[in-house]
Amino acid sequence: MRIDGQATRTSRPSPGRDAVRVIDQRWLPHRLTTERLADVAAVRRAIAEMWVRGAPLIGATAAYGMALQARVDASDAALAAAAATLQAARPTAVNLAWAVQRLLRHLLPLPLHVRATAAWDEADALTEEDVQVNHAIGRHGLALINAIAEHRPGPVQVLTHCNAGWLATVDWGTATSPVYQAHAAGVPLHVWVDETRPRNQGASLTAWELGHEGVPHTLITDNAGGHLMQRGQVDLVIVGCDRVSARGDVCNKIGTYLKALAAHDNGVPFYVAMPTSTLDLTLADGLAEIPIEERSAREVTHLHGRSAAGEMIEVQIAPDGTPAANPAFDVTPARLVSGLITEHGIVAADEAALRGLMAGRR
Amino acid sequence: MRIDGQATRTSRPSPGRDAVRVIDQRWLPHRLTTERLADVAAVRRAIAEMWVRGAPLIGATAAYGMALQARVDASDAALAAAAATLQAARPTAVNLAWAVQRLLRHLLPLPLHVRATAAWDEADALTEEDVQVNHAIGRHGLALINAIAEHRPGPVQVLTHCNAGWLATVDWGTATSPVYQAHAAGVPLHVWVDETRPRNQGASLTAWELGHEGVPHTLITDNAGGHLMQRGQVDLVIVGCDRVSARGDVCNKIGTYLKALAAHDNGVPFYVAMPTSTLDLTLADGLAEIPIEERSAREVTHLHGRSAAGEMIEVQIAPDGTPAANPAFDVTPARLVSGLITEHGIVAADEAALRGLMAGRR
Repeated sequence: MRIDGQATRTSRPSPGRDAVRVIDQRWLPHRLTTERLADVAAVRRAIAEMWVRGAPLIGATAAYGMALQARVDASDAALAAAAATLQAARPTAVNLAWAVQRLLRHLLPLPLHVRATAAWDEADALTEEDVQVNHAIGRHGLALINAIAEHRPGPVQVLTHCNAGWLATVDWGTATSPVYQAHAAGVPLHVWVDETRPRNQGASLTAWELGHEGVPHTLITDNAGGHLMQRGQVDLVIVGCDRVSARGDVCNKIGTYLKALAAHDNGVPFYVAMPTSTLDLTLADGLAEIPIEERSAREVTHLHGRSAAGEMIEVQIAPDGTPAANPAFDVTPARLVSGLITEHGIVAADEAALRGLMAGRR
Repeated sequence: MRIDGQATRTSRPSPGRDAVRVIDQRWLPHRLTTERLADVAAVRRAIAEMWVRGAPLIGATAAYGMALQARVDASDAALAAAAATLQAARPTAVNLAWAVQRLLRHLLPLPLHVRATAAWDEADALTEEDVQVNHAIGRHGLALINAIAEHRPGPVQVLTHCNAGWLATVDWGTATSPVYQAHAAGVPLHVWVDETRPRNQGASLTAWELGHEGVPHTLITDNAGGHLMQRGQVDLVIVGCDRVSARGDVCNKIGTYLKALAAHDNGVPFYVAMPTSTLDLTLADGLAEIPIEERSAREVTHLHGRSAAGEMIEVQIAPDGTPAANPAFDVTPARLVSGLITEHGIVAADEAALRGLMAGRR
């Protein structure tokens, strides 16, 4: 998608195949900084410290991490160690393990001397697939938006939580892909952007990327979405996901469950944009079985922003010594999900439908 | 309640009856500043700019505003003008109009020369009543907490939203009064404190006052409460209210509705601490009839906090020029409310019960 009118991607492998360039998203929206990651340690750090975030982008970046390892030591032991290091960087996103294991499966049967080239090719392929998958999600989601647009005057009102935008993927985004495609097709629409505390990905990333694409949007606090739905000001909720269980329980950014409850209470369709790589058929009960990452209390008690002087500053919002809890994700039960928008089409959030979809693709 | 071990109140009339001292709560928790309000304009400003906030404290402060007016010009016209000025300072809180009109009704039948004294006496009386009402709410709410404590090991887990604490009243608070009385009675309990964006009253005020009273508590983002309820980590929700309709619809800080939905979905009791002065029997359908204050977009795009250098600083969290919407309250439908904790006891959120309660008191 575009930054200041210029088409770009979040993850750009170097032509010399010795590094991958990423945006250090911690400084958005105030500063656009790209960083060159040249080894596994750098990739691990970029994932763990959330320079890159979003399940698909984490997966694509980790794939290049494996390729960077193969470049210096492609032995079975070195690749396995790199895989373990990368997988440990973030505990929740299933795409991380999925991408790393895909590279490992691809490389281990190959002779040592071709592994470096094969690894880079595979990371490139995975990246291109991500772009295609998200484009396809957008195409299927566009049909939902078109169907609403036919029956209402004025712009279609979409609400989204966190950033499942192109910054969370290689391009297009997941939840935003239908929005970008509708906007490109001239369908009038407007996006309510949840701030998404504690890390404010909505305020800092989603608002930023929608702005650069020229999509009308309004930032709201996480508290406001239910009220807007009560007042008939939301036609459709589309969120992303970090992991979906076989029966369609959706693990996504903390607070998603509250928006799903409000959508259900007000008859607002609640859709989850889900690349099928995010589906974990080994899990049934998302609530009982998905481990939830507990992040630092400081993310709750302190906040980053730009001062009037233009400096990036951390401020404390709670009294000194206040204890804080910071679960990073929650699980929305399948019963609250209207459907999952996948690259293969829209599917019901239930086990038979999901297993059927995947059986048809394997 | 206590600040650094010292008992105090939020609103302290001067012995000379020429001013009222209030805490400028905008600087909490980082700085404790008290301000002297000596005329109607100062009182209006303190209410409009939220130096004082919380329906009961707004009412008590406005009453002294009327008394300060009566001191300089107690004519019918001057009192009516002061009443209009004060009532316009905040549109939503019914206690503001209630307190101002009470003073007006009390003063207009009196001869001009006794109005100044009578006004101050009435403001004092209203203030003492607020303390008594909130103490009684705490007594009735304590019974709820005791009933839970009898059936669970470990501390009773209470979740609250915004600040319906003693800082929002003259003393005790509404939602916090049961908590303070349980803590004083030695009932083990722990409070989950919702941050409450955009103004962070939970992080800055509730956490601060619970800390000064020694009540165990943990700050969470507004997004986290649903997740905690799903995991069985909340026994009871108690919130305050700004206005309650005849059928028990509850207007309170934006985001309350989302917590009520989550409580309902997880079988967690959801109680509203409601001084009966907050009940508006002229309204039936809270959702359709209660006007919702829309506050400045800047409260969403910018945040106040303390820098590492100890300065109070405003930081911007959204991209330049991002539009934001900021509805300050929402309405929780009566069907989601387990009960209303009033100074006269706990009452069901339905019209017959509420009219019955009030009929018995008039």
